[in-house]
Amino acid sequence: MRRLEEEIGLSRGAIFHHFRDKESLFLAVAEDDAVAMVDTVAQHGLVQVMRDLLDRASPTSPDGEEPEVAGWLGTQLEVSRRLRTDPEFAKRWAARADAIAAATRDRLARQRDTGSVRSDVDLAVLAQFLELAYDGLVLHLAMGRPLDDLGRVLDLVETAVRRRGA
Amino acid sequence: MRRLEEEIGLSRGAIFHHFRDKESLFLAVAEDDAVAMVDTVAQHGLVQVMRDLLDRASPTSPDGEEPEVAGWLGTQLEVSRRLRTDPEFAKRWAARADAIAAATRDRLARQRDTGSVRSDVDLAVLAQFLELAYDGLVLHLAMGRPLDDLGRVLDLVETAVRRRGA
Repeated sequence: MRRLEEEIGLSRGAIFHHFRDKESLFLAVAEDDAVAMVDTVAQHGLVQVMRDLLDRASPTSPDGEEPEVAGWLGTQLEVSRRLRTDPEFAKRWAARADAIAAATRDRLARQRDTGSVRSDVDLAVLAQFLELAYDGLVLHLAMGRPLDDLGRVLDLVETAVRRRGA
Repeated sequence: MRRLEEEIGLSRGAIFHHFRDKESLFLAVAEDDAVAMVDTVAQHGLVQVMRDLLDRASPTSPDGEEPEVAGWLGTQLEVSRRLRTDPEFAKRWAARADAIAAATRDRLARQRDTGSVRSDVDLAVLAQFLELAYDGLVLHLAMGRPLDDLGRVLDLVETAVRRRGA
């Protein structure tokens, strides 16, 4: 809450004039996050979303801020908790996850048309593979595990969906 | 606690005679889980651990029990919460994660010697790639997302670390 007050220049009272409670505020932030992610996936692909995430988590990053990443990861974990306890939230969240999945499939389809994505595996499987890697990165960062060679791991993820030699 | 009483045939009182509190009991269960996982990784590899996990989560599985998987996933999420709030726990958990990572690297090294694992990417990167997929599967199941084609996604994960044509 303190960081949000500083960030948007509104007092706690003004913020809660717009949002009924912390839960509603949290949901609005999570929804914004998902909309921005669909845009980035459509333009640059899910691997780029992962690379951006890794950059922000890196301590050597110019705008690398531990608190921001920790806050974002807290959001992800709060999402996973609410999914198990709030059926209405779970339904809305599934729609958002489906939108990200659809954007991933669309982009893969366009890239297959230009010959850069492999054609021997179903697009649905390739898209789920990228989503699995994304989820893995989220949990890895949430656990605070070292970043090690994750950049090269993402290269491997990207190569695995590419046509050989493309 | 109720399921544990049934499972091991000891009363709540008897269980807490051995474990100081719920936290200690939780830690013992989590430690057991990690030791068993290191064994399976050494014998059959991390991809097999993932396939077993997917089988247990599948509703068509003969011994597929929603509560068991939910309990196990609850453990994983509890781990991630404690990692952020309990530095001593984080240290012990990191040692366990390192043991799993080491078992994964060892197995990859043996398989590279027999020619079945690709040699153009560092073993450390291949191992981290498999761990990323494992973490992704854990979060996917924890979120209660549909299983879809995850079996074929795991085939793709396995192929990505194999030597081409092997």
